[in-house]
Amino acid sequence: MMHKHAVGIIGVRGYSGLELARILLKHPEVNLALGFATDSSFKLSDYLSEASAAQVTIHSMKELDPAACDLKTVFLATPAEVSLELAPKLLAKGAHVIDLSGAFRLKAEAYPQWYGFEHSSQELLGKAHYGLVPFATPVSGKGAKLVSNPGCYATAVLMALIPLMKENLIKPESLVIDAKSGTSGAGRKATESQLFTEVEGECLPYKVGKHQHFPEICGYVEKFAGKAIDPHFTTHLLNVRRGIIAGLYAKLNPGVKLADIESAYSKAYSNYPLVKHGESVSLSLKRVVGSARTHISYKTDGDKLYVFSLIDNLLKGAASQAIENFNRLHDLPVATALTDMEGVL
Amino acid sequence: MMHKHAVGIIGVRGYSGLELARILLKHPEVNLALGFATDSSFKLSDYLSEASAAQVTIHSMKELDPAACDLKTVFLATPAEVSLELAPKLLAKGAHVIDLSGAFRLKAEAYPQWYGFEHSSQELLGKAHYGLVPFATPVSGKGAKLVSNPGCYATAVLMALIPLMKENLIKPESLVIDAKSGTSGAGRKATESQLFTEVEGECLPYKVGKHQHFPEICGYVEKFAGKAIDPHFTTHLLNVRRGIIAGLYAKLNPGVKLADIESAYSKAYSNYPLVKHGESVSLSLKRVVGSARTHISYKTDGDKLYVFSLIDNLLKGAASQAIENFNRLHDLPVATALTDMEGVL
Amino acid sequence: MMHKHAVGIIGVRGYSGLELARILLKHPEVNLALGFATDSSFKLSDYLSEASAAQVTIHSMKELDPAACDLKTVFLATPAEVSLELAPKLLAKGAHVIDLSGAFRLKAEAYPQWYGFEHSSQELLGKAHYGLVPFATPVSGKGAKLVSNPGCYATAVLMALIPLMKENLIKPESLVIDAKSGTSGAGRKATESQLFTEVEGECLPYKVGKHQHFPEICGYVEKFAGKAIDPHFTTHLLNVRRGIIAGLYAKLNPGVKLADIESAYSKAYSNYPLVKHGESVSLSLKRVVGSARTHISYKTDGDKLYVFSLIDNLLKGAASQAIENFNRLHDLPVATALTDMEGVL
Amino acid sequence: MMHKHAVGIIGVRGYSGLELARILLKHPEVNLALGFATDSSFKLSDYLSEASAAQVTIHSMKELDPAACDLKTVFLATPAEVSLELAPKLLAKGAHVIDLSGAFRLKAEAYPQWYGFEHSSQELLGKAHYGLVPFATPVSGKGAKLVSNPGCYATAVLMALIPLMKENLIKPESLVIDAKSGTSGAGRKATESQLFTEVEGECLPYKVGKHQHFPEICGYVEKFAGKAIDPHFTTHLLNVRRGIIAGLYAKLNPGVKLADIESAYSKAYSNYPLVKHGESVSLSLKRVVGSARTHISYKTDGDKLYVFSLIDNLLKGAASQAIENFNRLHDLPVATALTDMEGVL
Repeated sequence: MMHKHAVGIIGVRGYSGLELARILLKHPEVNLALGFATDSSFKLSDYLSEASAAQVTIHSMKELDPAACDLKTVFLATPAEVSLELAPKLLAKGAHVIDLSGAFRLKAEAYPQWYGFEHSSQELLGKAHYGLVPFATPVSGKGAKLVSNPGCYATAVLMALIPLMKENLIKPESLVIDAKSGTSGAGRKATESQLFTEVEGECLPYKVGKHQHFPEICGYVEKFAGKAIDPHFTTHLLNVRRGIIAGLYAKLNPGVKLADIESAYSKAYSNYPLVKHGESVSLSLKRVVGSARTHISYKTDGDKLYVFSLIDNLLKGAASQAIENFNRLHDLPVATALTDMEGVL
Repeated sequence: MMHKHAVGIIGVRGYSGLELARILLKHPEVNLALGFATDSSFKLSDYLSEASAAQVTIHSMKELDPAACDLKTVFLATPAEVSLELAPKLLAKGAHVIDLSGAFRLKAEAYPQWYGFEHSSQELLGKAHYGLVPFATPVSGKGAKLVSNPGCYATAVLMALIPLMKENLIKPESLVIDAKSGTSGAGRKATESQLFTEVEGECLPYKVGKHQHFPEICGYVEKFAGKAIDPHFTTHLLNVRRGIIAGLYAKLNPGVKLADIESAYSKAYSNYPLVKHGESVSLSLKRVVGSARTHISYKTDGDKLYVFSLIDNLLKGAASQAIENFNRLHDLPVATALTDMEGVL
Repeated sequence: MMHKHAVGIIGVRGYSGLELARILLKHPEVNLALGFATDSSFKLSDYLSEASAAQVTIHSMKELDPAACDLKTVFLATPAEVSLELAPKLLAKGAHVIDLSGAFRLKAEAYPQWYGFEHSSQELLGKAHYGLVPFATPVSGKGAKLVSNPGCYATAVLMALIPLMKENLIKPESLVIDAKSGTSGAGRKATESQLFTEVEGECLPYKVGKHQHFPEICGYVEKFAGKAIDPHFTTHLLNVRRGIIAGLYAKLNPGVKLADIESAYSKAYSNYPLVKHGESVSLSLKRVVGSARTHISYKTDGDKLYVFSLIDNLLKGAASQAIENFNRLHDLPVATALTDMEGVL
Repeated sequence: MMHKHAVGIIGVRGYSGLELARILLKHPEVNLALGFATDSSFKLSDYLSEASAAQVTIHSMKELDPAACDLKTVFLATPAEVSLELAPKLLAKGAHVIDLSGAFRLKAEAYPQWYGFEHSSQELLGKAHYGLVPFATPVSGKGAKLVSNPGCYATAVLMALIPLMKENLIKPESLVIDAKSGTSGAGRKATESQLFTEVEGECLPYKVGKHQHFPEICGYVEKFAGKAIDPHFTTHLLNVRRGIIAGLYAKLNPGVKLADIESAYSKAYSNYPLVKHGESVSLSLKRVVGSARTHISYKTDGDKLYVFSLIDNLLKGAASQAIENFNRLHDLPVATALTDMEGVL
């Protein structure tokens, strides 16, 4: 490869934006040229000690002019409404866009109920590639592409659920999903409910049955495994900074054994280096936080199946999966710049 | 009442023992005469500022001679094996015994599998009163009584589940229980897995499908609601000191509405002051920790029912329910000494 | 006492306001008549299970008309700027005012530097009683009174420091104060720096040498002990919800022994029930959080003195000390409604 | 370099041992051949996803026979008593020994008071190289060497203090040190005081004036800066997993300015890549945890100096400094394998 790809991050001061920057600065094929942040006094080198961090130019969001963009790839680590506005303009300028928000994940008619707005770019919705790696179809051909990076809860759930559904191992009507997330999933916006004093000491259910990742999960199980589901789905706020653990509980179809579970995952992830699965895979969030991997642990008890899926919400649930999508867009090995990452025990 | 009841606590230095002492020191009808602790240098007044705390005599466990006991009521805040040994001797001396361990909760044949020992007092097992208040039958008549105080997870689950099962509102085969507990439930014993460095940052599933409260839950649903269940049951260790939140997920029977859920709980708890239930009851652990109450919150979504049951594992899950049992044994109002207790927000 | 005192709380939804309400609802001589909160949908009974909580009327701050106030005592749990505006109006209507903000603690000329505003009620400043109990002079005589309740850090430090300075035990120029506080001290306002994700994992120095409690500490050491000091003073944000621990480090004057330290504290607190001091007093925040007490622990090593002073920042550092001031204003025992309070271990 | 260095870790399952393994597996000049752990069922690959982790042979401590050792360098991540016994035997076999315990840091006569044992290898004490990088003299010449890796608190304090003392900037008699550490500093041993339930909610002073790193600090200030000190020194246990922050408070010598502080640090660390110092260096533990750096932040206020020194107690305070010493022993750049390490924000 002759030249490094010039990329930019919009929303670089947020938690996902910072993680994107951290990875991109070490990516062998990338030149992180610039970033945009609401706070223009922000400096990457306050957060990252990489010598190159000091060389990334940071602009205020107010200075952002998509029409003047000459980047090859832009990462949008912005709220859905902002992504919705920026993506068409950046694509029009010929940039690949990898959007980490929910702006391009659902069908148009679902947006008012789940996101609270009418979708203003319905044509783009049809063209967006849902980037759940390794399930997403590789994107090829000419022209600017829009990748919709999956939601954090949706990623944790789908990575564990799609292989089971594809192989017809569980009774869909028995499925219950109880997911728990660290606080960084809520982003860096000051809100009373996210104050330390409020969160500490809790494991707080929220948006019970109403989380916007619910239709994303159901929609992409249908797309990737061809089956409809309508499970119980709860999300909890943990007093933990990072990490998601999703518990999936279901009844096995008649005759299904533990070995069938194992082979479903082995089949799904045979060529994919970023999943660790097995009966004895660690259930510790700390061992997955900081890494780009998904850890899937399972056990059976009669016809009862228990599956736990763990990711770092800011990495596989956001930034590192966005890099996987970048790598695929540019025909690089999917885990480029990601295999070295590991958590602080 | 002429004289205060002289009571003692065995295992007073443990987390449940300390909470028992705290309540008993304020109980208007009780004289907390003495306590036994493994560490004989232990002083209650190091923990509790009540003037009376300084007057409770603490003995070493080694000095404990059940044959010399002249207390009216003894609280056993001891491991199951220790309770199993002490209870018969104390009952023989005429004391009421309120046992906080699991020594007298299951059928004899269940002990090897779930507690790892053969039960040595099978006759007593048949006489023990399972003290789930308000469901337990009042104990009356003469003679020393043995009350088996329910387990913490079992209490949280049963308080939410029994009314639903009695009124036939849910499909038993659809039930999934995902429970999470603070660390004090593991007691004060030094173990590597309970070190701060290990627990912090986690929401760790443990004993999946194998927790000893599982047969307790199934057994007492059958006893109090007359139906067999075999749900998914998971327990998680939270990086929180106190509190249990149990999520119960099930499908409603045809035609069951939210109002039926409400009336089932209203019926079950009409004469009981220590439950707060409703669709908008707080899901915050901090609002229940420190109190003797159970908080039950629920919502429906089509035929899906979500119920969350919250208790302080050391209070309703241990010490305050033991006091409820004490109050009932002595014909006192069930919430005597308990209504004032509230959490630190 | 024939009638209960009718009192109100302005700012009742904040952390200190809630603690005030909790205590006042149990206070035998008080009728908590009403409260004002920025969020008018707020209900005390969502937080406190006391039956009486449901009967306190909550008004929006917008409805507040000091000129229509007919309360006997008003607690201001409001920002300094708001207290500054309300206090004169409430006093003019004949109410006692107990202000928990910093609006009336310093000399007028200090406000621009330490609070960022010019003081608009300089005459009132001279009349305000600084309510550090037990050091504050009892307030007597007719007429509405203004009590300025001390700051949280200032309280923790002054309770430990005044007795040492009065008895001339330490070299003032050697004094260093390193204080650490839980997050509730920052109040319930949404700010990025107080997000769980930001605070967790930290022990973060802030406002080093610039905290507004610094002139308060120096000023009242001079007032109560007659000596000037200019110590190092640091404040740290702990990832803990409640509690302050202040470390005071100084050199002893020649000949001073541990016994002199002990007798200085014994002398200062002989008639005051809410201090626990001694060489072996617990250094645990959890044992003081939830209580109205101050815990003072000390040790000497040659001529080096180490003192640790611990309080609950929301109680002795705010709400319970305000109740002490209320009790004194009304000639009630200083600890009325406060002795029962204890932390959740 | 022709061949990679074959190294081993004794005590590989402990927190420092795991961090050593993590770094050594990525070290370009090292072959981590084997490890010893008390728990022989331990597998590095449960903790680290590096492919090479699976290839490290783990032996039980019982199988350890120093006389059979053919490693070139051995890291001892063992208790002081164990290091004391093993070091002479390994040196006798010709191995370099890098000891992370306190066994070889003090003078012989200090051991009974500060470590509770008589030192059994006094001759070796005189030969041990105290490995505070960059202050330690480079080790050269033939033969097996013993490096005593500095203590965690000692490292944090000395890195900030030596430059100030060397340049004569502060009054030694005014110095106060208030240090706080995360829990991993206490190691992985099950003890009641380290239980989550105990530690959570605290900032607990311990070993006040009696910590074994106190004589280490005083001794090496004298060695490296030529001056005696006897400061206040307190250590606190934070409810944080990793990280040390030490606050150093002192009076400046007459005429000393902020610029003098800056130039003292610039001079001390001009050729050393692993220190970040300055008036605006972050005070956040999270930004140093996971990295091999020391962050030093300072400010002056009149003649008062405030300095904060932050490290990861398991890295610069243990494992990464041990790697620095390894690199120096083998004439590699001091930061080999360490510059890439960064914390999880």
